Amino acid sequence: MPANLVETTPSAYAYPLLIKQLLLTPLATTPDQEIVYRDRLRYRYRDLQGRIGRLANMLATLGVKPGDTVAVMDWDSHRYLETYFAVPMMGAVLMTTNVRLAPEQILYCLDHARADLLLVHADFLPVLDAIRDRLKTVRTVVLIADGAPAALDPARFAGEYEALLERAPPGYAFPDFDENTRATTFYTTGTTGLPKAVYFSHRQLVLHTLAVGLTTGSHPGGQSFHRGDVYMPLTPMFHVHAWGFPYLATLFGVKQVYPGRYQPDMIVKLFVAEGVTYSHCVPAVMQMVLNCSEAASANLNGWKVVIGGSALPKGLARAARSRGIDIWCGYGMSETCPILTASQVRPEDQGTLSDEEELAVRCRTGLPIAMVDIKIVDTDMNEMPADGKSVGEIVVRAPWLTQGYLHDAKSSEALWRGGYLHTQDVATRRPDGYLQITDRIKDVIKTGGEWVSSLELESLISQHPGVAEVAVIGIKDMKWGERPLALVVVRPGHEGQLTTELLQQHLLAHCQNGLLPKYAIPERFLFVSSIEKTSVGKTDKKLLRQKYGAS
Amino acid sequence: MPANLVETTPSAYAYPLLIKQLLLTPLATTPDQEIVYRDRLRYRYRDLQGRIGRLANMLATLGVKPGDTVAVMDWDSHRYLETYFAVPMMGAVLMTTNVRLAPEQILYCLDHARADLLLVHADFLPVLDAIRDRLKTVRTVVLIADGAPAALDPARFAGEYEALLERAPPGYAFPDFDENTRATTFYTTGTTGLPKAVYFSHRQLVLHTLAVGLTTGSHPGGQSFHRGDVYMPLTPMFHVHAWGFPYLATLFGVKQVYPGRYQPDMIVKLFVAEGVTYSHCVPAVMQMVLNCSEAASANLNGWKVVIGGSALPKGLARAARSRGIDIWCGYGMSETCPILTASQVRPEDQGTLSDEEELAVRCRTGLPIAMVDIKIVDTDMNEMPADGKSVGEIVVRAPWLTQGYLHDAKSSEALWRGGYLHTQDVATRRPDGYLQITDRIKDVIKTGGEWVSSLELESLISQHPGVAEVAVIGIKDMKWGERPLALVVVRPGHEGQLTTELLQQHLLAHCQNGLLPKYAIPERFLFVSSIEKTSVGKTDKKLLRQKYGAS
Repeated sequence: MPANLVETTPSAYAYPLLIKQLLLTPLATTPDQEIVYRDRLRYRYRDLQGRIGRLANMLATLGVKPGDTVAVMDWDSHRYLETYFAVPMMGAVLMTTNVRLAPEQILYCLDHARADLLLVHADFLPVLDAIRDRLKTVRTVVLIADGAPAALDPARFAGEYEALLERAPPGYAFPDFDENTRATTFYTTGTTGLPKAVYFSHRQLVLHTLAVGLTTGSHPGGQSFHRGDVYMPLTPMFHVHAWGFPYLATLFGVKQVYPGRYQPDMIVKLFVAEGVTYSHCVPAVMQMVLNCSEAASANLNGWKVVIGGSALPKGLARAARSRGIDIWCGYGMSETCPILTASQVRPEDQGTLSDEEELAVRCRTGLPIAMVDIKIVDTDMNEMPADGKSVGEIVVRAPWLTQGYLHDAKSSEALWRGGYLHTQDVATRRPDGYLQITDRIKDVIKTGGEWVSSLELESLISQHPGVAEVAVIGIKDMKWGERPLALVVVRPGHEGQLTTELLQQHLLAHCQNGLLPKYAIPERFLFVSSIEKTSVGKTDKKLLRQKYGAS
Repeated sequence: MPANLVETTPSAYAYPLLIKQLLLTPLATTPDQEIVYRDRLRYRYRDLQGRIGRLANMLATLGVKPGDTVAVMDWDSHRYLETYFAVPMMGAVLMTTNVRLAPEQILYCLDHARADLLLVHADFLPVLDAIRDRLKTVRTVVLIADGAPAALDPARFAGEYEALLERAPPGYAFPDFDENTRATTFYTTGTTGLPKAVYFSHRQLVLHTLAVGLTTGSHPGGQSFHRGDVYMPLTPMFHVHAWGFPYLATLFGVKQVYPGRYQPDMIVKLFVAEGVTYSHCVPAVMQMVLNCSEAASANLNGWKVVIGGSALPKGLARAARSRGIDIWCGYGMSETCPILTASQVRPEDQGTLSDEEELAVRCRTGLPIAMVDIKIVDTDMNEMPADGKSVGEIVVRAPWLTQGYLHDAKSSEALWRGGYLHTQDVATRRPDGYLQITDRIKDVIKTGGEWVSSLELESLISQHPGVAEVAVIGIKDMKWGERPLALVVVRPGHEGQLTTELLQQHLLAHCQNGLLPKYAIPERFLFVSSIEKTSVGKTDKKLLRQKYGAS
């Protein structure tokens, strides 16, 4: 390009995209909006500014310098929100710690991330006690007593969060620096191997916030998060920055409600008392809230809830809709900051769909949000047609994807290929743009050059009345590469009646309906007494493949 | 900063912010939405993609290379929209030409910008004829016949836009490049001197689009532009990219209606026929539309119109509201891409204001939009308190401000001082964040260390029944630096009755109401037969200061 084209931005005009700039408009325009922590504390945005400054001064006094890593182990709270801003705004890195991991895994993560300082809620002291002597890099620990005054051992703790905050001055001159400076890091837990760390820069978090805010905010009618809402997260703040919504809620200047540890009764109580209108969670939390006794008598009408983490089952969506909950899906992963798609009904389709059709849209993987370049590709990176049938892997480019895994060049290499991040999710795309995930790539059965979804086969087989449980895996085949093998647990009362032929006929009917290609019908069905599960209750396909002969 | 902090982004993961990425989601998710040109043409987003590719191929065939400048002289049209994308996406610079300038000024601008190719609508051929022989850099001219087949002189024109487009192939591999590459340039017309060019990069236009879209889209209720709207610009596309809204409308994937030359009857006809819901314009255009006979019988209820360019008079706002028009203000300038603020009612104030109070909010300069760092400062860059009274100059940082004026280092230097762009607008700021412009800095009267708004004095004096017209300027004063001088044209029927004392008493009443400080009352009132105006009908304060003794 000719030299006169590229504007090298002199520093006088430079405006690096930094997390601190998300605070500019809310602090100036909605200083009286509230931030609420359970039924214990509430303060205003004008106080948030001072608390962020105090936290930075406190951390600086405790020796935190730009480039250091500050780890947090806390429930969802105003404190967590304060660290979301103060730590990266100082030029330090915020490590959000998955408190559900085993102590040994937490030890691994803190060491691997080279955490310098740890803020730890009193509830997690047993975990800390189990690993403290072996921590390699953590120099300083601050206790979060959470209201309960604690007699602190100065040899173990630098102090208590709130007490230290009170002693620190509110003014802190947060500097400008390169927008590509790392702001956050956290660990993903795959089904196997050690946790891997993803990481995000100031620029990435700002752009994720702007694009998510534009897409959700500009949606007419429901299925939106906007500046008139009251926000309460139900995805833990240690998990991909609670999907980035605390940053967006702050930029929007809305009232924010932090529920601490997730207890259904407290969640419903806060929902009612604070007038919550927008939340996000995994399906299990939605189910837990709907099932709790407090929810039975509460008016949940108009609650907007975006579901992520795993697919939204239609049964759950229907149950939520029957309570008046405006429920829909988002899709993403830790590696993608996370949001890539949302299952909003297109404005041009609003009012044209039946209830069942709209429910189906809301349960889809969704439409890409602004600035997301998403494709369905075959193994040679050829784009598959958007015909609602052709399957391929979802690959993506967006301004907010992790560059790789921290200190793990090998895994990073597999993540990025051909200029795109490979999600390992297999999906179709409809002509109107909606994506639908059909499988994880490792569970797809590649047979004769075609891809067969193990999830789809399982779904169809499970609809036979004699089937209690089913798992489908690919096994090696000389001719076709792989062929599907179905493991079936027979439903009590159907013992001895279920045969391979009956199940093949059952599937053949679906082939005639056009729901399944004929080559997807397994030759082999194995009737088993149980199907192995992982520690979190998912079918352990890795183990099954080992046991039954994977390709 | 430690080296491990700054992520130097390897090209495999790089995602430069480029204008082409604004097309990603609309082309994938709303391919059937329409783009309409008057009553002559309509096509779909799926066609837009091909037309952008054809335009790039056509321009490349005509010799346009990255770094070249393509100038446009056209009415608001689908063609203009196509150039907004195709030209910068090739790596070339789009020059939007102010067709209201005199031919000699247009000659100056085309030469100064070093335009290589010109797309010109047949209506502007008389202008081109007047300057063509003297154009220094334009090598190629393409005629926009606009439906009327034209016999072209091949010595004068490389061809006709639509005919050339048809012959070009639709596929063009738009490359990635540095996001700081210049995308657009255009000329501002100050009241004096030669036009000056501002310029914007891909990064700046993308960030402006995201931040404007987030702020307007996320506003609950009215006063918003969102993905359910139908868009029609009423600010010319040559003027600051029609305030950036064609980029945002495209990103939103909404139906777009381009009205060509602004004719009130055609505007109202399109509004009704196409179901337009969102527009933007200067007050004069709103007034023109409201006054036209077609508007009298049309149902304008629910039309969202954002006003910019100059302050929204309450009378016009009231007239528009009485027709059901949802009207409010935005503020910005050519140098700022342009949008900095919007006078939306804060969500927490919605439903709490009387009609008159809400009207006042809608006529304010507004609240800063996302990512805008805006301050009111004195001449030493000290920030003024947000008390609704203290006045100072508006200075601003945002990710989308021009770095300076093209090929004009001296003017650029005055624009940026202390790390902020100086708007030369004088304003107050309320505790709830709203800005209110009170004057242009050159028209403010600096007296005894205080700033007195000439606009405010004019507004108060004009409310006296004996005053037909008034202008206030600052004149030199040995003791106070400056003192206000009021020039008054007496209303017919009041001749001989109006005195300096009467007008001072009139102002004193406003002092007692707290609306004016006492030191603002002029000692001198001059009764004149007329007040000099500029060519565009504004009070010519520069001339008045020369005539009556400026400081």
